[in-house]
Amino acid sequence: MTSERPQFIPAELREEILMRADRIKEIMDHNGIGAILLAGNANIYYTSGRFFRGYTLITPDSDPVYFIIRPIGYDTEGVKAFYIRKPEQIPNLLTENAIAIPDHIALEYDELTYSEVSRLKAVFPQAEFADAAPTMRRARMQKTPYEIKMMTVDGLHQCAAYRRIPHIYKEDMTDLEFQIEIERVLRLEGCLGHSRMAGRLMEINLGSVLYGVNADAPTPYEFALGGAGVDPSLPVGADGSIMHAGHTVMVDMNGGFNGYQSDMTRVWRIGDIPDLAVKAHECSRRILRRMEEIGKPGYLVADLYHEAMKIVEEEKLADYFMGHTQKAGFIGHGVGIELNEQPAITPRSKETLLDSMTIAIEPKFVIPGVGAVGVENTYIVTEDGLRSITPFPEEIQEL
Amino acid sequence: MTSERPQFIPAELREEILMRADRIKEIMDHNGIGAILLAGNANIYYTSGRFFRGYTLITPDSDPVYFIIRPIGYDTEGVKAFYIRKPEQIPNLLTENAIAIPDHIALEYDELTYSEVSRLKAVFPQAEFADAAPTMRRARMQKTPYEIKMMTVDGLHQCAAYRRIPHIYKEDMTDLEFQIEIERVLRLEGCLGHSRMAGRLMEINLGSVLYGVNADAPTPYEFALGGAGVDPSLPVGADGSIMHAGHTVMVDMNGGFNGYQSDMTRVWRIGDIPDLAVKAHECSRRILRRMEEIGKPGYLVADLYHEAMKIVEEEKLADYFMGHTQKAGFIGHGVGIELNEQPAITPRSKETLLDSMTIAIEPKFVIPGVGAVGVENTYIVTEDGLRSITPFPEEIQEL
Repeated sequence: MTSERPQFIPAELREEILMRADRIKEIMDHNGIGAILLAGNANIYYTSGRFFRGYTLITPDSDPVYFIIRPIGYDTEGVKAFYIRKPEQIPNLLTENAIAIPDHIALEYDELTYSEVSRLKAVFPQAEFADAAPTMRRARMQKTPYEIKMMTVDGLHQCAAYRRIPHIYKEDMTDLEFQIEIERVLRLEGCLGHSRMAGRLMEINLGSVLYGVNADAPTPYEFALGGAGVDPSLPVGADGSIMHAGHTVMVDMNGGFNGYQSDMTRVWRIGDIPDLAVKAHECSRRILRRMEEIGKPGYLVADLYHEAMKIVEEEKLADYFMGHTQKAGFIGHGVGIELNEQPAITPRSKETLLDSMTIAIEPKFVIPGVGAVGVENTYIVTEDGLRSITPFPEEIQEL
Repeated sequence: MTSERPQFIPAELREEILMRADRIKEIMDHNGIGAILLAGNANIYYTSGRFFRGYTLITPDSDPVYFIIRPIGYDTEGVKAFYIRKPEQIPNLLTENAIAIPDHIALEYDELTYSEVSRLKAVFPQAEFADAAPTMRRARMQKTPYEIKMMTVDGLHQCAAYRRIPHIYKEDMTDLEFQIEIERVLRLEGCLGHSRMAGRLMEINLGSVLYGVNADAPTPYEFALGGAGVDPSLPVGADGSIMHAGHTVMVDMNGGFNGYQSDMTRVWRIGDIPDLAVKAHECSRRILRRMEEIGKPGYLVADLYHEAMKIVEEEKLADYFMGHTQKAGFIGHGVGIELNEQPAITPRSKETLLDSMTIAIEPKFVIPGVGAVGVENTYIVTEDGLRSITPFPEEIQEL
């Protein structure tokens, strides 16, 4: 048995990782941040191309410095990487390697627990501290060409899996059985099976299937729509109802096939559905066409929201938009390593669209007694407007 | 369409919830804690029987007080529950309802982010603060009869799903395909599909299938064994290898069928495996028999570890125990709402076994070139020793 140690940062990723570090440094400089010490899973992945347990230190004058706790066995040649048992070893290691101990350090206040941040602060008793979130969110918001390639691959896999959905449906299936078969198809297509999301206000398996009136059940989570789920410990998504004619079923399942994700929603129907549902679905598509046209660098994110609302009100569908009983306060969100990245597309957003942002837009409606309708695509912001990475027919098809 | 509002705490759960609050209050008193304000998902579920977005306040002289942000629409009759938009409303609500504003508050330092804790501290400018973790861990460590019933149900479902595993296997399957079919069987059996674990150092889909030499691949995560996974963003579990004769495949998949979980590992083989693997597997079973016998209230948790090591060393298997290339520092852990509860069974543990603790014990071995062997059961600590809730044949069966 040959045992080759894996390169900590594979040769083909080194330039990419340095480019990301440069991007972070530029924003650090703009934000008046002296150094950034990262430990959160998504930022560890962003700054190294892999998940390891430990820390990434970004300072203005150095390549990233990695402190690895686990796993053992990386080949770290050519990278500034040190094995540690605990963060308290970091200052001495820096000194031994002639790297200045930073006196102003940003930590992930929105990501690490109070205990973790307090411990790291004690490691650097002389330093002042700031929040790393504004810098890291800003850096990760605009994707590199490599990241866009990863997400484009996600979108293609997700479409391939969705293509099999009509073949999965069987009469008298429950929404949950339907969802389980979709999960299987996604996994066989290469879906990693883990929804990486920031914070503790989104818990879910591999996404959500919303059939009929369950689409209107309010959820505690921060998803666009709810669903009651099958247990009070996880109140979201399919509720185990048998699917009958006259209703829609909305599929918003996981698109994570590598460290990145795409986010796509499509709707199917069982038998005929009321005109109101069809009208709302076409309104969603009209909104997306408008967003695709105006969504260019320099456009205000809040104006995307306002523009969508204008169309919804014109069509007198506001009562059903983004939920009926309980409404979501956004119509889309950034996507990347995490499913809930910046910018959030809300009326209060202060963000401006930037080239190579990746955003999911999900104008959805809940029609009482019928179900949810609407389309969600993931887009790249380009000079020509929004470019979809989820190319899949948008019409409501019969199951 | 009838729309009955769900009771915030269903009648049949009220006594249980009050009993848990009393348990927390008793430990608060012992720990010198004036009040506890909880927001973490597991503790919200523990103190209410459901997941909602908001806060639970436990004070010595009151029933639990709930502050609900989302979802809307609960029937809160008979419960001290208030709808809020943000935590800053809590002090006024307390005053309006003649509940004293606590001046000593424990918050979940190990669960909430630095930002969340800082925000809550600012809500109570007059208060002193402490960490809620010791109190809540202690309270949740010993299960109520209701919780034990829930976990027993989990164990039965998990066994039912595992029973189908031999029928899933097909020649020349990859370990990942095998895992995907097990996931489907688990989900169809009622598995909720979400692994609730504390902290960010465990990310996984529905558990882990470890085939052959992949069992020895070190992981960054805090699982007992590793596996390379199929992507550097999620380096754990199945790596996509085709399964061949002469190897073992270890199945350690999710047992969460309600808000609680059971944790169970079994091993299958493809063709014949070397005697060393069989010997190590039998050693694992010998360890479990010993643990079952000595694991009574009053026994030191650290001594469980030492006792297991004694058997391992007697059989000269230490080199393979709890990993070969990278070793885990524990042989088991508490299980309940979360998969990684207290006590952790480590040589440094200061805990003592208590009646109605629920612990998973997983003495596992990695045999180089062959794969992982060993058994994991979830147990209840009783006066008669450990009682398993995962009654499934322990022998290595052929697939």
